[in-house]
Amino acid sequence: MSPTATERRRKHWGWGYEDGQPSREELEAAARGIRERLGFGGDSVEEPVPLEAIELPEPRVEPPASLSDLFRTDRYEAYASNEAELEAVLGWCAEEGIAAIPYGGGTSVVGGVEPRVGDGYRGAVTIDLGALDRVLEVDPVSRAARIQAGARGPALEDQLREHGLTLRHFPQSFEFSTLGGWIATRAGGHFATLYTHIDDLVESVRALTPAGTWESFRLPGSGAGPSPDRLLLGSEGILGVITETWVRVQERPRFKLSVGVAFDSFEDGAEAVRELAQSGLNPSNCRLLDATESEITSAGPAGKSVLVLGFESAHHPVDGAMQIALEAARGHGGDPGEVKGQSTPQPRRGAVRENPPVRGEGGSDPVGSWRHAFLAAPYLRDTFVACGVLSDTFETAITWDRFAEFHGQVTQTARRAIAEACGVAPDGAGSPRLSCRFTHVYPDGPAPYYTVLAPAKRGGEIEQWDEIKAAVSEAVIGAGGTITHHHAVGRDHRPWYDRQRPDPFARALRAAKQAVDPSGILNPGVLIDP
Amino acid sequence: MSPTATERRRKHWGWGYEDGQPSREELEAAARGIRERLGFGGDSVEEPVPLEAIELPEPRVEPPASLSDLFRTDRYEAYASNEAELEAVLGWCAEEGIAAIPYGGGTSVVGGVEPRVGDGYRGAVTIDLGALDRVLEVDPVSRAARIQAGARGPALEDQLREHGLTLRHFPQSFEFSTLGGWIATRAGGHFATLYTHIDDLVESVRALTPAGTWESFRLPGSGAGPSPDRLLLGSEGILGVITETWVRVQERPRFKLSVGVAFDSFEDGAEAVRELAQSGLNPSNCRLLDATESEITSAGPAGKSVLVLGFESAHHPVDGAMQIALEAARGHGGDPGEVKGQSTPQPRRGAVRENPPVRGEGGSDPVGSWRHAFLAAPYLRDTFVACGVLSDTFETAITWDRFAEFHGQVTQTARRAIAEACGVAPDGAGSPRLSCRFTHVYPDGPAPYYTVLAPAKRGGEIEQWDEIKAAVSEAVIGAGGTITHHHAVGRDHRPWYDRQRPDPFARALRAAKQAVDPSGILNPGVLIDP
Repeated sequence: MSPTATERRRKHWGWGYEDGQPSREELEAAARGIRERLGFGGDSVEEPVPLEAIELPEPRVEPPASLSDLFRTDRYEAYASNEAELEAVLGWCAEEGIAAIPYGGGTSVVGGVEPRVGDGYRGAVTIDLGALDRVLEVDPVSRAARIQAGARGPALEDQLREHGLTLRHFPQSFEFSTLGGWIATRAGGHFATLYTHIDDLVESVRALTPAGTWESFRLPGSGAGPSPDRLLLGSEGILGVITETWVRVQERPRFKLSVGVAFDSFEDGAEAVRELAQSGLNPSNCRLLDATESEITSAGPAGKSVLVLGFESAHHPVDGAMQIALEAARGHGGDPGEVKGQSTPQPRRGAVRENPPVRGEGGSDPVGSWRHAFLAAPYLRDTFVACGVLSDTFETAITWDRFAEFHGQVTQTARRAIAEACGVAPDGAGSPRLSCRFTHVYPDGPAPYYTVLAPAKRGGEIEQWDEIKAAVSEAVIGAGGTITHHHAVGRDHRPWYDRQRPDPFARALRAAKQAVDPSGILNPGVLIDP
Repeated sequence: MSPTATERRRKHWGWGYEDGQPSREELEAAARGIRERLGFGGDSVEEPVPLEAIELPEPRVEPPASLSDLFRTDRYEAYASNEAELEAVLGWCAEEGIAAIPYGGGTSVVGGVEPRVGDGYRGAVTIDLGALDRVLEVDPVSRAARIQAGARGPALEDQLREHGLTLRHFPQSFEFSTLGGWIATRAGGHFATLYTHIDDLVESVRALTPAGTWESFRLPGSGAGPSPDRLLLGSEGILGVITETWVRVQERPRFKLSVGVAFDSFEDGAEAVRELAQSGLNPSNCRLLDATESEITSAGPAGKSVLVLGFESAHHPVDGAMQIALEAARGHGGDPGEVKGQSTPQPRRGAVRENPPVRGEGGSDPVGSWRHAFLAAPYLRDTFVACGVLSDTFETAITWDRFAEFHGQVTQTARRAIAEACGVAPDGAGSPRLSCRFTHVYPDGPAPYYTVLAPAKRGGEIEQWDEIKAAVSEAVIGAGGTITHHHAVGRDHRPWYDRQRPDPFARALRAAKQAVDPSGILNPGVLIDP
């Protein structure tokens, strides 16, 4: 069993560690602030049901004596600490008809690791990969590293830092999510352009399937048949358990510049972002916030849309690129604030901890404020819910030609659905908030990300969100967007994913799974039916 | 039947059109030049067997009357001009157990479209997609275009030019190869970095399979399950017939700079290229030629390795990027020539034909010379063969950490194998030539491309090359390279591809094919066994 698992316990309900739960007094202060700021919520504080009060059904299956060391049937986790143990567990599951669910950080927001596997299984086993958390090998010449799949963001970056290197994949879930989980779900990360998904940082993948080890050769690029890695990327655990991977890493950036650029309207900002996304400048940060999002995250002046723009390089100053980008932004009415950062190189190595701050480290400038709010969002969400505010998100991608109409339709549907689900008026003071930002942008279109803040129905929050989510999902795919840009499909997105996926591809994927997992034990119910 | 097919006939043996065949006198002059320059070959001229002298077996199958209009059983081609016709042909093939081979430009160098389908079929039908050659739709806002799969490079670019746009995918086969063929084989193109393969330019793909239409949604980025497009990319016709695709296009570049940089050794040049590939500068051209390659293509001073370096943009001047890149190159001993091109913008549109010159347009500078030689190479190869010189290539990709050892092993094996196959000494005056260049480079490694010029055994050229190719293929995969970076697998690379591909992936791919092509008629023998 991994020692790290006992040291600090994760919350059973909510984001972060048990010891990080805000106190009653802190929550009550937050509730007052929320009510003042939003005009709803905050009339009372409800804390999560304590773990002791939760009745869990007894496990339906009993592991054989030979594997019992690997299993924990209390309310926490079960670990395999090497591939032989993983194989043994998979073998037992296949033999006994037990669903096997690979588990990384457990941060799925789409039911990706929930044991909703249907009645065709004797039980479900969650295979926690947390003990496989090492950087095994570093190739500084090719800028690549072999890393175990269970490594969480901070642990992975800490180990790479010793070599002056970084993966620079910082999804919002960075603190708890794992490399294997990122690959299985095609996670979106730090870079707003170019290397948006983890897909682009993967050099080769090793996965255990019931039919043997699926491991691609370590190559910078190959044109030999369809890419084996690309079939594992996004496979969400249905084809195999990813155990390790070679990823492309980088020298830590020594030149960094960032700036907030205000626009009168989201539309003007979107046109500026389109030009930037098509310019070939490839900024590392290029996130457009609408006025509501900007207000909530204190990123910019009231009523303005704000573009959070940044360039970084380990190789050369980025002042020239920033200048060209600002000129482009001004051409669309953008009003840049002060450019902050490093024009002269920072020392190549150092003890400076440079992971994204995970909590409590606010920023003194608009860009820092936004960055802080971005990373604190999962924590804030728990506080919102405790204070009676429903807080959730949905995200997509769409081509530029359809964006304006898409955005209009989706926001209209969302506002109506939120108001209905909350029993309030869609507009006016104290009405629900719907905000939008671009998390990633491409030459051919943006990836819009929507955040909802609305009065919660106490005790009915899940049903309330399900109602809203179903309505907005219909609107998103009806207007031509993808059901998910980087949140994955899991079990929750299935109804819409099934309608968007080419039917022959669904057949091909089902057959591929059958070929490598003949007993159908691997994470049944995500992506395809068992 | 497509009118373009009758207007100008392609050579039945060799590159280009029948009317472009050099005359006897031209070939004899070439032979003298070759002998003088290489020290071998050129002692006689042999022209290809005329088509009339070739005995072709009678077709084994007879199309039904309903389809007879689509079929040509003379020695040229058969066309389907829309999807309904394609479906009818596929249906007939499935019913009758006839292999169906999708055919784009016929430029495969790996036996990708040869009817070597084994004995399990009543016959083989080549489905020529040449009539599907239109740009159907252009979206200038998202910079994307919907284009039929049978469009050849020049036709595709000519149609895009009317909109001020370009795909900028210029493989060496550009003149004759097709968009569908590029996708089916993951072709490598114009850009030496970043957008190296056609994969990166594809927004969505539509293909006909015997199990229905496989069409992905048009999206800038999606994280919904494994990418359906990525399973078609590189599928070499075994999963479906690609009929059309949305691709990412660009404004035509208005700023362009290029320069040749000489290095004392290939190793020094490689180190410079590694720095550039890892710098984030992403030059459009970054091709390192060894001294032999540089000499053959007149790209640089004798005995020097030459880096052909270029930047281009439709958006902003590239002088700054070029300066940083040249500074990096100088740091590795590089000696840049004169930078040529446009620092000030060219007019946005214009009647200027800007396709790569396909023949006869030499360059006045080193970069132009190399570019000319690159594009003329397929023509030159025919001349070489006519004059008794075996001329062929092999290519791969490898990570930087292993490159030096890899290159040493591969060149050693290749020299020995060439000398043996040609019955000559490996070294000394008039010995065979083996040259190397990087066609594409990545942060984690280069894609080396090797060219062989050696004395041919008249009438035994194919066996001679097969012997060399087998030896170098062993050396390439033995030293850790991919069996192909962008030439595809086809039938010729199967023995090595089969050893490099993860076994569970092979099972998955076989099952996927079975699911969408239950009769197994689609291009049997490439990638996997029928």
